[in-house]
Amino acid sequence: MPRYKLTVEYDGTPFSGWQRQTSRPSVQQALEEAIERFSGEAVTTQAAGRTDAGVHGLGQVVHFDLGKAWDPFRIREALNYHLRPDPVAIIEAEAVGDDFEARFSAKARHYEYRILNRRAPPVIERNHVWHVPMPLDADAMDYAAGMILGTHDFTTFRSAECQAKSPLRTLDALAVRREMEHIVITASARSFLHHQVRSMVGSLKLVGEGKWQPRDFRAALDARDRKRCGAMAPSDGLYLTRVDY
Amino acid sequence: MPRYKLTVEYDGTPFSGWQRQTSRPSVQQALEEAIERFSGEAVTTQAAGRTDAGVHGLGQVVHFDLGKAWDPFRIREALNYHLRPDPVAIIEAEAVGDDFEARFSAKARHYEYRILNRRAPPVIERNHVWHVPMPLDADAMDYAAGMILGTHDFTTFRSAECQAKSPLRTLDALAVRREMEHIVITASARSFLHHQVRSMVGSLKLVGEGKWQPRDFRAALDARDRKRCGAMAPSDGLYLTRVDY
Repeated sequence: MPRYKLTVEYDGTPFSGWQRQTSRPSVQQALEEAIERFSGEAVTTQAAGRTDAGVHGLGQVVHFDLGKAWDPFRIREALNYHLRPDPVAIIEAEAVGDDFEARFSAKARHYEYRILNRRAPPVIERNHVWHVPMPLDADAMDYAAGMILGTHDFTTFRSAECQAKSPLRTLDALAVRREMEHIVITASARSFLHHQVRSMVGSLKLVGEGKWQPRDFRAALDARDRKRCGAMAPSDGLYLTRVDY
Repeated sequence: MPRYKLTVEYDGTPFSGWQRQTSRPSVQQALEEAIERFSGEAVTTQAAGRTDAGVHGLGQVVHFDLGKAWDPFRIREALNYHLRPDPVAIIEAEAVGDDFEARFSAKARHYEYRILNRRAPPVIERNHVWHVPMPLDADAMDYAAGMILGTHDFTTFRSAECQAKSPLRTLDALAVRREMEHIVITASARSFLHHQVRSMVGSLKLVGEGKWQPRDFRAALDARDRKRCGAMAPSDGLYLTRVDY
């Protein structure tokens, strides 16, 4: 059966997350219903990252199989037509080999977390940033971020509900920069634990506020204790930006 | 009476525009009601730019008078509290002399127009960009933009309902640049005619598509004929970014 790879953008605000649920709308359901409307085939899609409720996708990657072969350009156009008015758009559609797995073939996942760091609340970016009114020191945050790169037991920054067998992960990049009123945090790894990015961001915010020294951030990691994690950052500011294969 | 200057950000999507109307919610009404809720005083505000329905503010400037003097910091915080949940935020509040007029003291107004130039429709930026699926040549647009700088009769790029006495305006800046999937158009002048920016952008889009040569853009201006204007760009992509005094 022909297999297709989609690069998908979505506004996570109205969704219960990527994964299909019985009671609430999900990105997966919106996408699978659109695929059925254009192709007549009921399919199950698989995504590189099963983003939580409220988390956004800029470069989510999804694969699915169809019984009939289609021109990828037509798949993209048809899906963008049938996805309306849901805030989900297909950026790219490609035919791929049947050994391609959106989730398991991924070599790196890239996330971005956006903080609006000013007194006034967000309006244009409502639901798309974390509003932190107290001034944050982006340089201190970036310095702390650099202290936890590499392979570690990330138990401190892992949800209690995380189902991964091992808490070991290799963090390839974690960086913090200021862009005018925004603090932008980028994170890259082959894979992340559940809530890992939001947990690291919540703790980096404590460094930015001066409540933690950068070494406290590293000490929290080394403690391998969920109770040492700062309050988790909200989903609003998190974007899955790219997946590499 | 103490006079205050506000720098205001708003999402124009749910509003009928800046100006108060009897039937539909306006930014002016939202702001004046918030001022009354914190101060107990019913005031009339004046804005630098009376933006149309759907046009956004990033740096709109407003002034108003109060009978009682307040700390500007407290005005900003109280207004941001009372403006919720309307998508309007006060970025800055300052005490100013009673000769300051948001509209008439303005020396320059700066607008930005954002086009999303890709096949897929906007989702994260829905209502905040103009979606143009066909590839646009930003360099050709920028070249054309440079041909109408200076003082001209802008009748071609002026709404039929424009109430300004003269169609003469001095365009200090009009520039077009590509930022990845976006085309960003910036425009600066002491003042603009009604619908001038959206009219210029609509015609520049024809240049970007190759339907017009840059010289056709200049010829449209010189014709001083509203019928020579390209279809006006929608309000979604327009932002009042800054006002200089």
